[in-house]
Amino acid sequence: MNHRIIGKTTGTILLVEAACLVVPLLCALLNGESVLPYLFSALIMAAVGFPLTRIRLGDDHFYARDGFASAALGWIVMSLFGALPFFFSGAFSSFADCVFESASGFTTTGSTILTDIEALPRGLLLWRSFTHFIGGMGVIVLTTAILPAGGERVQFLMRAEVPGPTSDKLVPRLAESSKILYAIYVAMTLLELVCLLVVRLPFYDALNVALATAGTGGFAVLGDSIGGYKNPAAEIVIAVFMLAFAVNFAVYFLLITKKWRQALRSEELRFFLIAVAAATVIIAVDTAGKYASVFEGVRTAFFTVASIISSTGFAVTDHDLWPELSKTVVVLLMLMGACAGSTGGGLKVSRVLLAFRAAGREIRQMVHPRSVNIIRLDGRAVDEGTVAGVMKFFFAYFAVTFLVTLLLSFEDLGFTERFTAAVTCMSNIGPALGRLGPSANFAALSVFSKLLLSLTMIVGRLEIWPILIFLSSYMIRKR
Amino acid sequence: MNHRIIGKTTGTILLVEAACLVVPLLCALLNGESVLPYLFSALIMAAVGFPLTRIRLGDDHFYARDGFASAALGWIVMSLFGALPFFFSGAFSSFADCVFESASGFTTTGSTILTDIEALPRGLLLWRSFTHFIGGMGVIVLTTAILPAGGERVQFLMRAEVPGPTSDKLVPRLAESSKILYAIYVAMTLLELVCLLVVRLPFYDALNVALATAGTGGFAVLGDSIGGYKNPAAEIVIAVFMLAFAVNFAVYFLLITKKWRQALRSEELRFFLIAVAAATVIIAVDTAGKYASVFEGVRTAFFTVASIISSTGFAVTDHDLWPELSKTVVVLLMLMGACAGSTGGGLKVSRVLLAFRAAGREIRQMVHPRSVNIIRLDGRAVDEGTVAGVMKFFFAYFAVTFLVTLLLSFEDLGFTERFTAAVTCMSNIGPALGRLGPSANFAALSVFSKLLLSLTMIVGRLEIWPILIFLSSYMIRKR
Repeated sequence: MNHRIIGKTTGTILLVEAACLVVPLLCALLNGESVLPYLFSALIMAAVGFPLTRIRLGDDHFYARDGFASAALGWIVMSLFGALPFFFSGAFSSFADCVFESASGFTTTGSTILTDIEALPRGLLLWRSFTHFIGGMGVIVLTTAILPAGGERVQFLMRAEVPGPTSDKLVPRLAESSKILYAIYVAMTLLELVCLLVVRLPFYDALNVALATAGTGGFAVLGDSIGGYKNPAAEIVIAVFMLAFAVNFAVYFLLITKKWRQALRSEELRFFLIAVAAATVIIAVDTAGKYASVFEGVRTAFFTVASIISSTGFAVTDHDLWPELSKTVVVLLMLMGACAGSTGGGLKVSRVLLAFRAAGREIRQMVHPRSVNIIRLDGRAVDEGTVAGVMKFFFAYFAVTFLVTLLLSFEDLGFTERFTAAVTCMSNIGPALGRLGPSANFAALSVFSKLLLSLTMIVGRLEIWPILIFLSSYMIRKR
Repeated sequence: MNHRIIGKTTGTILLVEAACLVVPLLCALLNGESVLPYLFSALIMAAVGFPLTRIRLGDDHFYARDGFASAALGWIVMSLFGALPFFFSGAFSSFADCVFESASGFTTTGSTILTDIEALPRGLLLWRSFTHFIGGMGVIVLTTAILPAGGERVQFLMRAEVPGPTSDKLVPRLAESSKILYAIYVAMTLLELVCLLVVRLPFYDALNVALATAGTGGFAVLGDSIGGYKNPAAEIVIAVFMLAFAVNFAVYFLLITKKWRQALRSEELRFFLIAVAAATVIIAVDTAGKYASVFEGVRTAFFTVASIISSTGFAVTDHDLWPELSKTVVVLLMLMGACAGSTGGGLKVSRVLLAFRAAGREIRQMVHPRSVNIIRLDGRAVDEGTVAGVMKFFFAYFAVTFLVTLLLSFEDLGFTERFTAAVTCMSNIGPALGRLGPSANFAALSVFSKLLLSLTMIVGRLEIWPILIFLSSYMIRKR
């Protein structure tokens, strides 16, 4: 392990995080709230981060493992230090609660331990939403976009942070790719902000919602989430943008560069849209009669499907009260999640597609032993290593999910609640089912479970391997 | 597809099944019950089966797909025709119930739709237990052991029926292997029968229990399952034999041929025994105080662990009333299941071992990119195709399980009940959790769900691919 590079990366992340605190600080100033929580936090981040960034790198080689370990430690440290503003605000009852909220924010999960959200200062609520925005596209991608850095090193780092089975560069130069990604990201967020102002959401609320949607996070500034606005137009706008942020950003790049045909050829996108449509129809039919009008029923189904599949977790209804079929569809959407290369979580649509094709090929190969079967995605052959990687990811995902389900057994929760809590944190969604459902929160859990789920969220956000590599690298070395 | 061979195999299976009806018929005669249900059924089986066995095979080639399709159709037909004695007895309320009971018997699942087991004639109860015995080691293995048949054809058939990631032949000649397997199987069943008589179980009960344990089935002749005997010694005997039948039979062959060292080197066996010990300790501690004495608590935990991990499903307690930790351990044991090459179900210990090793290798490879990492089992290198096959099996297992969970949504059941019902049928165990738990039954389900779960049991027994190949072979050919 290259400890110098790991330390230096962590230091850079802390400095970026300190700079990000300007946003809630300004908000606090404008609202006449105390700026001390943000000032103190930024000073501590800088005091720890700055010396780390002064570490001199030798000309030692940088391996993939160092990228994974850097991302893992960086995200853990970012979540721990990001808890400081919450802690200094005095609005949280324990540091574990602050860590949970911070990890939930950066990983764009959106599960909360807060029971009275409206009571929080506005600056702090904006920091919550802003952590979604930072975590959504990724702090390392951000660093790459704004700081000059070496090629190979950054590539390994980005590979650990950008979700999906393969990470394509948009353009040959990585720093350029990061800039383009962030430009699309910011532009879409601003567009949503404008749309939300048009449908008459107050500016502060619209800003928070846009930031949380961009990261597919799910923190809201109202206790009743988006349902609290009672604004059908806003619900539709938010639902559309949740889906937009759950699409592979490479598609937008292709659209911008006018490669229409290539953009629309994306099988992942098509499968994603079909899944959204099918789930909406099934749930709308299954919940028919529960809402005042057919329009409200379909809108509620569409919003919830968009919220779950994009791994955002905003709520306009308590889907825990839905019939079993709809609840099962919700669990399946939780598992599948969004497109690769988006800000969304879950197993990812392209992985699910590849896994089904691999299973289909297995069958075809047995039926026609002499046929040659290559797995294709978007017309291109997928190499066998990627397919095998997808399968290993599935196994690791379920192994971690069941382990977390087991470790949550000490809580007073049923199997459904524990399993969906593990899935919601692994997939960075937000609400689970039952007593951890959309109208509830994670406040009642023990400190152990809160920290366990915080780590689970980071494991899910970095797609498992980085954290496992980080945790096991020292054990393996000792052999 | 080679329809002639598929038809001929199905015919042979039906004739074997007809012959097996001699057992309940004799029992009915001895007890002065009507023999007509068995006579009628045997006649129908023979009438359909005999013409099929007269099909002349050309010298056409026999592919793996034909073996899979033969096994799939054979098992479906066997379950349908095996329902006839239940139907003719008049003790069942619908043919769907009979099919469920028959499929549950042959696949050694042991889930029942009966609400008053003791009311059934003794011959019929013996037929239930005997279906476990037939299905446990497999009807094709039985056919191979008693009938002369060609090499390649039988090898493909056996590969579809014998569970596990690899199917080793014990001796070079396949028919010999089958004979040895069945000899061990019968000897162990007789040994259990004797042990049960020693601990003073009535002969009829001991016979039924021994047959059901051998197949790791779980049908009992008392409504309270094994708990109804209130015989601690019998519980221990049965628990030990459940574990014994869940061990790879190759281990016994090695013991018989005095290859002690090789037998004890089995990593699968060691991992299996460690899992049993660990689960027993966790559950005994977790349920401490719920039973009259420490001995009873440990015994109950041990029995239940043995019953679940071996996929038998006998009960001495209602584990649905246990604390959440113990219930989660039960679900994990349900998923893992028994050793490959045993009569037990589930994902199989060796697959779980291989999957964890593959995940561990993934991590090791990233930490030390230049190291060479070969996955080993029992000291031998496992080829990459087998590892990839294990991963695809995991994916297919979870895909089918979640699909069944979804399709069960029309029942008035919670997610936990539907998910564990899917797992219990896929893994051929018997009881699920909640309202389908050990002290309940599947009677209240709709006809659709009963037939769905019947098919799920066969899918699980044949380890997924044969049924999928059978169902999809015609669709694929049309392309």
